[in-house]
Amino acid sequence: MRVLGIDPSSQSTGFGIIDYDEERCSVRAYGAIRPSRRLPFHRKLNEIRERLEELIEAHKPEEVAVENPFYARNIKTAMTLGQVRGAVLVAVAARNCALYEYSALEIKKAVTGYGQAEKRQVNTMVRALLHLKDDSVGQDASDALAAAYCHLNTRLFNKKLEEQG
Amino acid sequence: MRVLGIDPSSQSTGFGIIDYDEERCSVRAYGAIRPSRRLPFHRKLNEIRERLEELIEAHKPEEVAVENPFYARNIKTAMTLGQVRGAVLVAVAARNCALYEYSALEIKKAVTGYGQAEKRQVNTMVRALLHLKDDSVGQDASDALAAAYCHLNTRLFNKKLEEQG
Repeated sequence: MRVLGIDPSSQSTGFGIIDYDEERCSVRAYGAIRPSRRLPFHRKLNEIRERLEELIEAHKPEEVAVENPFYARNIKTAMTLGQVRGAVLVAVAARNCALYEYSALEIKKAVTGYGQAEKRQVNTMVRALLHLKDDSVGQDASDALAAAYCHLNTRLFNKKLEEQG
Repeated sequence: MRVLGIDPSSQSTGFGIIDYDEERCSVRAYGAIRPSRRLPFHRKLNEIRERLEELIEAHKPEEVAVENPFYARNIKTAMTLGQVRGAVLVAVAARNCALYEYSALEIKKAVTGYGQAEKRQVNTMVRALLHLKDDSVGQDASDALAAAYCHLNTRLFNKKLEEQG
């Protein structure tokens, strides 16, 4: 099973793809989409959408996990983040992927065991859990990998529950 | 000159296209995009994006006017509206249209002379100004036509200033 995690942000949208096979996780790709700062906002959104569609086309993930933000500092931040999320969700729907959403709390808890963990702790734990030796994994990429990891965790937990029936 | 106005909303995204030629405005098309209620949210967003791209492809507007919301009741509303706006902006950028944004106050003022006008007043004035005999023009469509009208107004005002300059 292949899962794409996405961490939406107008400056730098993180992505991470994890394969799960025979009880092992392996990271297939990760990185961040950073539209040129000179682009007007609506063109930045479209670049994020295009790059995500290319990623989905290239790696063909079966499922996509995205953080569902229940919190934003203020209306303006919520509106900006909402617009980037809109571009991300359009890409997921246009490529016919199944979408799963998790709160920041669920994602942090799945990775660090603690819902209030800081971004740096998430980064350290993601690299340890996924055996990534690259010290330079950015925080946007590790947040995206954390979303994908959280989704796999939930999936496998549900499957075990079903088997125990 | 042909302008497309858009009024983003997840339930019913209004659109209206106005032609301006030899000092006369004429309405070319208007209506609303209403994604099926049964669709999951990300598919609704993609349907809005697809329908808008089809509209732009069919009518080839040179410029697009969208309301820029500075106000939302709360974080949740801002996030939802932001996501729909994201889908709308992606369509505008994907079809290479120039985007112009106006506040609700500017749009209402351009149409009714009063920035705090109610939706119903906007609807009545838009129909009068654009000689629309159809009583059944919905409020989403009239808000979209108002955005397009506001843009034309601003454009022509600026042009006159330049000529006098």
